[in-house]
Amino acid sequence: MKSTYIKEFTQVELNNPILVEGFPGLGLVGKIAIRYLIKRLGAKRFAYLYSPHFPYFVLVNKKGDVRLLRGTFYFWKNKDGANDLILFTGDSQSQTVEGQYEIADRMLDFAQKHHVKTIVTIGGYRMEAKEKPKVYVAATNRPLLNRTLQAGATVSSSGSPIVGTAGLILGLARFKQIEALCLLGETRGYLPDPMAARSVLEVLKATFSFDVDLTGLNEEIAKAETMMTRLQKIEERRALQAEQTRKEEDKKTTYIS
Amino acid sequence: MKSTYIKEFTQVELNNPILVEGFPGLGLVGKIAIRYLIKRLGAKRFAYLYSPHFPYFVLVNKKGDVRLLRGTFYFWKNKDGANDLILFTGDSQSQTVEGQYEIADRMLDFAQKHHVKTIVTIGGYRMEAKEKPKVYVAATNRPLLNRTLQAGATVSSSGSPIVGTAGLILGLARFKQIEALCLLGETRGYLPDPMAARSVLEVLKATFSFDVDLTGLNEEIAKAETMMTRLQKIEERRALQAEQTRKEEDKKTTYIS
Amino acid sequence: MKSTYIKEFTQVELNNPILVEGFPGLGLVGKIAIRYLIKRLGAKRFAYLYSPHFPYFVLVNKKGDVRLLRGTFYFWKNKDGANDLILFTGDSQSQTVEGQYEIADRMLDFAQKHHVKTIVTIGGYRMEAKEKPKVYVAATNRPLLNRTLQAGATVSSSGSPIVGTAGLILGLARFKQIEALCLLGETRGYLPDPMAARSVLEVLKATFSFDVDLTGLNEEIAKAETMMTRLQKIEERRALQAEQTRKEEDKKTTYIS
Amino acid sequence: MKSTYIKEFTQVELNNPILVEGFPGLGLVGKIAIRYLIKRLGAKRFAYLYSPHFPYFVLVNKKGDVRLLRGTFYFWKNKDGANDLILFTGDSQSQTVEGQYEIADRMLDFAQKHHVKTIVTIGGYRMEAKEKPKVYVAATNRPLLNRTLQAGATVSSSGSPIVGTAGLILGLARFKQIEALCLLGETRGYLPDPMAARSVLEVLKATFSFDVDLTGLNEEIAKAETMMTRLQKIEERRALQAEQTRKEEDKKTTYIS
Repeated sequence: MKSTYIKEFTQVELNNPILVEGFPGLGLVGKIAIRYLIKRLGAKRFAYLYSPHFPYFVLVNKKGDVRLLRGTFYFWKNKDGANDLILFTGDSQSQTVEGQYEIADRMLDFAQKHHVKTIVTIGGYRMEAKEKPKVYVAATNRPLLNRTLQAGATVSSSGSPIVGTAGLILGLARFKQIEALCLLGETRGYLPDPMAARSVLEVLKATFSFDVDLTGLNEEIAKAETMMTRLQKIEERRALQAEQTRKEEDKKTTYIS
Repeated sequence: MKSTYIKEFTQVELNNPILVEGFPGLGLVGKIAIRYLIKRLGAKRFAYLYSPHFPYFVLVNKKGDVRLLRGTFYFWKNKDGANDLILFTGDSQSQTVEGQYEIADRMLDFAQKHHVKTIVTIGGYRMEAKEKPKVYVAATNRPLLNRTLQAGATVSSSGSPIVGTAGLILGLARFKQIEALCLLGETRGYLPDPMAARSVLEVLKATFSFDVDLTGLNEEIAKAETMMTRLQKIEERRALQAEQTRKEEDKKTTYIS
Repeated sequence: MKSTYIKEFTQVELNNPILVEGFPGLGLVGKIAIRYLIKRLGAKRFAYLYSPHFPYFVLVNKKGDVRLLRGTFYFWKNKDGANDLILFTGDSQSQTVEGQYEIADRMLDFAQKHHVKTIVTIGGYRMEAKEKPKVYVAATNRPLLNRTLQAGATVSSSGSPIVGTAGLILGLARFKQIEALCLLGETRGYLPDPMAARSVLEVLKATFSFDVDLTGLNEEIAKAETMMTRLQKIEERRALQAEQTRKEEDKKTTYIS
Repeated sequence: MKSTYIKEFTQVELNNPILVEGFPGLGLVGKIAIRYLIKRLGAKRFAYLYSPHFPYFVLVNKKGDVRLLRGTFYFWKNKDGANDLILFTGDSQSQTVEGQYEIADRMLDFAQKHHVKTIVTIGGYRMEAKEKPKVYVAATNRPLLNRTLQAGATVSSSGSPIVGTAGLILGLARFKQIEALCLLGETRGYLPDPMAARSVLEVLKATFSFDVDLTGLNEEIAKAETMMTRLQKIEERRALQAEQTRKEEDKKTTYIS
């Protein structure tokens, strides 16, 4: 394996497919969103992406089997709508600068081969937690952007960077005559954030008018909140102790001087 | 995109063009100088330089559009003078060692294609602030150097390095039979420095006898000075507090011993 | 040398060979195991692996001779059993991400050329010291895995990574229709660990029913234990002193306040 | 420039040439030795080595001219002896792992082209200062090694690494049927060390029976010693002050407790 390549092990005929990408990143927003769609829609895997730019370890599966790090393409036949879906997620982003460009490039070649006209990339946007995470959007064309705004998204502020595959796919898409859209869910980013993933999926659903029940994410969200509350309490206790220590030291100091 | 490449989207016929390069670097001197020329002269963009050695993120434009990091070539038809100009600036330098050489190489190929005989690169030279920043110069041939000296520049001291594209273009230019000149404006370097950019542009104007009004930079310079003064006051206050704290601690220590 | 390559200097005919790999890694488990087999079985070297991805220094041999860092392939004719052995160890793993994939790839090409059907990779698994180190196992097929379980190994837990060549060989093996097995001996990892190597070799022997006397490792194990005990004493003394110092400081503090 | 290449600008016919290499490294031993030979023998430059793996800056020469980082080959016609000399030194070693191998490879190709049978590489060996620095030696063949031992060198201890071009040339030389020798002068390493360079040159002279007056190095050695003495005094004064401070703090502590 000299460079990134995609191995297609099932031949599929897709109807006006949209490719939705979600590599791991901030708050794992993209990966959580894609995995939920796969599970909920019953999407089937049909191709793997391998790269020597992934980290150099393998993962042990259940039953002691082993596999390379990889990305996986899934397809879903949309009986009631205009667009079938190709869903993509993976274990890790590239470890090298050039690998980042190479992987985005190969994904676009693959999209072209499958007559994909529209790609959506999903990621996180670092922001303090709120009741309901906003979804920021950037796109390679205006009509596509407008549809997401009607679906409740906010235009990403000018000059802000979109890092990694989610961004490079948009940057490189125009060379392949593919339109592309990036949806970024607000997230504090250091814990898996299913709430941000839900916000993104709501915009996705409305933009492309396909139906998927998102209530299945609620359980994950509840767990994430419990975890968050627990971490906050630990933090507060630490802050209190630090304050206490500081006061005692102040007392000593005052006494001496 | 396997390597750096340049995409020319407008065909232009240029008259004895000089290429002037200013990637971001110390004090953003090169980028500020080029951007000012583009605006003031009304130069038009005609080619982009893309590279997998740029950092792996994209930028969101106004209106939510997205683009790869890139360099941009602009041209300006000089009706009253001997040389048209090609102006170049970009978002970022290469992130890898090899990419630095590759980008400078492709720029020289592009210059050759457009029959460029002379290239000027612009950058910053780290130095404590002065009333009027000096301009240091290095060049691949002596007559070119002399013209800049007559225009008020100072010869760069022997053994000093010129880092990045601004330097490598000079180093590689002789292999393509192109003469090249580097103008470095004195700058403290950690803030954008339009004053250094103005000094460089004054030398550039005089060296190649073309006319451009530089008063438009004065406003930028005034803003930068306000910013600088404010930062200095904050620094002084911090220094004073540190001194105060030290004295109090000395008192305590004396008391104990 | 533009990329990794293998130089075969002796032509050998091998009977159903199994390739056993042990690059340096955690606790040097793989390297110790392979070196012991080589010595004990009297295996002969027949090929070297060189790579520009190894660290850029050379080693001085006895008598002032010099050599590149390399991997070495040895063969052993197994007169009493079904499988000859190819043993592999080396000085260092690759220093670059892409090099890691390249080296594993070339080793698999070499294995294919020699009609190897099964590869075993050996490494360490970080774990607090125990009486008898366990051996964790992962494999590309189930029957192979089961044979090691019967030989006393434990299935590696799902999701755990296997880093470096030992892992990548398993990940890449399926593309070459070679079955592969990874044996990881428990080790604290920061000192050479012949005890972990012995555990691994016990499983290896039993899995592939070949005979090798492992008592020769006992001396190495005894030495390693002496070393360990000495280090622990030094550590304990340090801890004691630190405690002492802390108490004295507490006394002073109390007195002052 | 996609990879390292050598540009020969003068055609020379050499008689049984020996190539002597000295890139900058520990104590600049190699570079000082080569530069002294060039000056003393009046060797002439005839080829440059360029590489995209060198650091990405250029150097300003006297008179404001600019050049890429490079290595330079010089030749010297030895009228009284059996071997002409090719001398090589440069500005910097490679910045990347692969570049290190590539540069050594190209130098060997160049040597082969010029019918070089023997290469000598020169470097430093980190060691506390002594009256007269020893010279450690490693070589690709035994007779060559023996000649240096008779000339006063010491065999490099087994297992010690030789880092960078000086080492890789020896490692790679055997693939080109060239014999190679490495001479390492003992040096503390953090300052330019002409004394170590002199030791190395003494061994070199005696080994290949050519005549060069080394007294010209004495002035440089005297300067280096003055510098060293001054630095040692500064260090001692610092140590004294630190001791003083410690004592005063001890006094305070005693008083309190």
